Amino acid sequence: MVDLKLFNASPVIDARSEEQPFEFFSNCPSLGQKRHSSHIPATDRVRKDSRYVKTFRDPRYSTLENEDLVEFKKIVGDTGVLTEAFELEAANTDWLKKYFGSSKVLLRPTSTQQVSEILKYCNARKLAVVPQGGNTGLVGGSVPVFDEVVLSLGAMNKIVLFDELNGILVCEAGCILENLDNYLLEKGYMMPLDFGAKGSCQIGGNISTNAGGVHLLRYGSLRANVLGLEIVLANGEVIDSLRTLRKDNTGYDLKQLFIGAEGTLGVVTKVSILTPPRLSSKNVAFLSCGSFVDCQKILKEAKSRLGEILSAFEFMDRHALDMVLKHSGKSRDPLPASKHTFYLLVETTGSFQNHDREKLDKFLEACMENGLVADGVVAQDNQQFTSFWHLREGVTEALSKEGAVYKYDLSIPVPHLYSVVEDLQKRLGDLAIVMGYGHLGDGNLHLNISTPQYDEKILALIEPFVYEWTASHEGSVSAEHGLGFMKADAIYYSKSPELVQWMAKFKQIFDSNGILNPYKVLPPSALKETSPSY
Amino acid sequence: MVDLKLFNASPVIDARSEEQPFEFFSNCPSLGQKRHSSHIPATDRVRKDSRYVKTFRDPRYSTLENEDLVEFKKIVGDTGVLTEAFELEAANTDWLKKYFGSSKVLLRPTSTQQVSEILKYCNARKLAVVPQGGNTGLVGGSVPVFDEVVLSLGAMNKIVLFDELNGILVCEAGCILENLDNYLLEKGYMMPLDFGAKGSCQIGGNISTNAGGVHLLRYGSLRANVLGLEIVLANGEVIDSLRTLRKDNTGYDLKQLFIGAEGTLGVVTKVSILTPPRLSSKNVAFLSCGSFVDCQKILKEAKSRLGEILSAFEFMDRHALDMVLKHSGKSRDPLPASKHTFYLLVETTGSFQNHDREKLDKFLEACMENGLVADGVVAQDNQQFTSFWHLREGVTEALSKEGAVYKYDLSIPVPHLYSVVEDLQKRLGDLAIVMGYGHLGDGNLHLNISTPQYDEKILALIEPFVYEWTASHEGSVSAEHGLGFMKADAIYYSKSPELVQWMAKFKQIFDSNGILNPYKVLPPSALKETSPSY
Repeated sequence: MVDLKLFNASPVIDARSEEQPFEFFSNCPSLGQKRHSSHIPATDRVRKDSRYVKTFRDPRYSTLENEDLVEFKKIVGDTGVLTEAFELEAANTDWLKKYFGSSKVLLRPTSTQQVSEILKYCNARKLAVVPQGGNTGLVGGSVPVFDEVVLSLGAMNKIVLFDELNGILVCEAGCILENLDNYLLEKGYMMPLDFGAKGSCQIGGNISTNAGGVHLLRYGSLRANVLGLEIVLANGEVIDSLRTLRKDNTGYDLKQLFIGAEGTLGVVTKVSILTPPRLSSKNVAFLSCGSFVDCQKILKEAKSRLGEILSAFEFMDRHALDMVLKHSGKSRDPLPASKHTFYLLVETTGSFQNHDREKLDKFLEACMENGLVADGVVAQDNQQFTSFWHLREGVTEALSKEGAVYKYDLSIPVPHLYSVVEDLQKRLGDLAIVMGYGHLGDGNLHLNISTPQYDEKILALIEPFVYEWTASHEGSVSAEHGLGFMKADAIYYSKSPELVQWMAKFKQIFDSNGILNPYKVLPPSALKETSPSY
Repeated sequence: MVDLKLFNASPVIDARSEEQPFEFFSNCPSLGQKRHSSHIPATDRVRKDSRYVKTFRDPRYSTLENEDLVEFKKIVGDTGVLTEAFELEAANTDWLKKYFGSSKVLLRPTSTQQVSEILKYCNARKLAVVPQGGNTGLVGGSVPVFDEVVLSLGAMNKIVLFDELNGILVCEAGCILENLDNYLLEKGYMMPLDFGAKGSCQIGGNISTNAGGVHLLRYGSLRANVLGLEIVLANGEVIDSLRTLRKDNTGYDLKQLFIGAEGTLGVVTKVSILTPPRLSSKNVAFLSCGSFVDCQKILKEAKSRLGEILSAFEFMDRHALDMVLKHSGKSRDPLPASKHTFYLLVETTGSFQNHDREKLDKFLEACMENGLVADGVVAQDNQQFTSFWHLREGVTEALSKEGAVYKYDLSIPVPHLYSVVEDLQKRLGDLAIVMGYGHLGDGNLHLNISTPQYDEKILALIEPFVYEWTASHEGSVSAEHGLGFMKADAIYYSKSPELVQWMAKFKQIFDSNGILNPYKVLPPSALKETSPSY
């Protein structure tokens, strides 16, 4: 039997969200989003991606004129057209403060009809457009690169309907993920996705990036749960595929193309999504172990012994934990007796607390008996539950406080998943702290490299090494963050030239003038091959 | 407390599969499939769809010549080219014996390269092609309409790899679903889909029809589980999207277009699929209740009390049960005390038998106390488990023994799901037995109308009434069977003309000569609008 005293939690408090700091950028203060009041320091502006160097404004696009503003005001009214510099600052800056656009106008439509009229107008005028949700992406996908019109979906935040028997939710694209989850709380359901940015990211952006998160292991990808979409194409055409049926095999499922297209094929305006019942029993264990091989064995043990109640299997290395402990003032190591190489967060979700706890105990017992787990704690109350999660989710914010950070979001077959971290540690030596954490149950590594300040020489040691390493191990250079602006050129590491050519064809078909979210997802060279006018 | 004596099972034996009889058609006897030896009776040939009347062979397609056979033999060898009438009979006939093609050749490639060469040749020659898996479809999607070349995938039945840590299976398209499930059994995993035809349907066909089945409620749709595909396009181009990663957000997910496209956009040759762990504990309860409103209440109760272990929630009405009891000789009513209007089959799957049984008992107790369940039994052993399932899955075969049957596979919002059965019962009166059964947990009704023989006048009373009824209740005219040949014209009841036009554009893009599975999925009128050459 496991000595349960081993699993009494030390208090761990006030760790913070990983994917998103508490203070973040948003242009939508009226929607419950927090606002970053400080001016972006000039020094931050050097934190640019090297892609900036080679990207030029495409001369096909028109430049905004006063007449355009007059037309926009006819569509969305005076209050829906924002042009002051302070109003645009947040929308022009990505969350990492790595990408800075210079858009001169932000539009806030309140209906699909308005989105349609805006796009029809911009398409005719050849004005480039960036659709923007919560602007919480990490690959520069939701900010203008140059002077694109920002099309904010934040004012389209109404719930359209909820089917309580089947758990089917229909809502507008600008609804904030956490608000939706809170709405479902009282109905006995929950959103099937969850991650650090939930307090500000919007469901339309989630779908446009096929967002993953900590519960994909249990509830599947967004593709698995999105039942319908309403989409506005670049020419203003509205595609109504907003079905509320769990099964519908009548023809090709075109809406799938827009899931994960990062706003480059169309703008998602409404969403129909299947939500799972919110089960009453939740547990989380925080474990340490000495090797990555043991981490994998524990994963296998969890899959077999926790079976249907396993809802998250996250991991972080000691470097990542140290980063949180250093920068999240009140956080404490829940396993202070000794330092270990790896830490795991194992969450269960079920409908019967006694059953879940018994399964969890047997799982932990097996792990201890097999010598897989060095030490561990199980959260005893909600506060500990939240604290453990904050240790895992606090890494990103902690890293941003440490200095410069080079972030990679990789899918790698689990047996090799940590080797890229070790190889980079050897490669960079004392130049940087290289760490790994992420969704081990999904084979998704967040590889982060921390240095005091940005340095092109260090970047040159990391890229294309990381991408080449990933490709040679049959991984993906973007597991869940998307390609955005940062990785458009890296697509060939994960997709064949033939597949990229097909993608470029689809871009051409849906957006022949290329006005939607330009410079993102596909490299310009691929688009040039498809479109003679490019 | 529930009196558990109520739940002792009466023996129910030897009921048979619903979606598929034990004797079925196949052209691949060497692959472990059973063979139907009898000649198709001439009288069966009148069981034709009324679409035959209005469909003419498209003169764009060439007619098979001897030179073509010579070329085919160069590609697949002599044994891969079947031209004898007896060899083609099964491939020319659909499972319902409703559709009869007149193909003169069946090709059995053994590699992707061969499929590519065949299609390249047929495309250049403008020979129409029907890709064929297990030929178990119910909408005439997998048989030739006229003299199309049959491209059988049955000889491509190799497993490529299995990742035991993550449960990721890569295999060729011709693998039979049940064989894959048996392969996974010893690895501790299972296929995420299951239905009556599993003994002969092939995974490529499953994916091409986005097959549903009894476990979709638990494991999600095929879209949720397919990680990668290899596809051959009409011109022979191979699209390699055969990834083995759970997460990969690098560009547009083009493979989704081929899932559920019924072989009209490309031929699936290899598959990468996520398989869930096979859990050790299974239970099934067979319940009766007096009203459809009570069925819904029991569904809600099951979702909340069985939560994570609920793996199927099926229903059938008394007419459907009677049909099985009449035609499956040894089957017996497990609840013989009195007749009820509705019967439910509730299955649980979990990792811990005691826990599952306790949850199931509490669920049943609540249903009894609330007066929702009239009577019920829980399977006490494997034989009873199988017998209960056979009662539900035996309906289709029983119906085929009764006489003519008009079959509809509808998605309807659950509260209205049974009303269409009642409305049709009123409409047809003594002319037919109208019954409903299916996947209640997914809102999927199998509406079946049984008559002694086929009668165009009865069909005229059913169609378009059923389709109009479904459309007016925001349902889908095909939940899981697809459109095939039978329902191509019915697509507009579930999809807008604009969406159908987009589908036609995609057909034109991927298959500009229209050689792949013609006359299926999209109505010819839609294709004519897109393609001037049509």
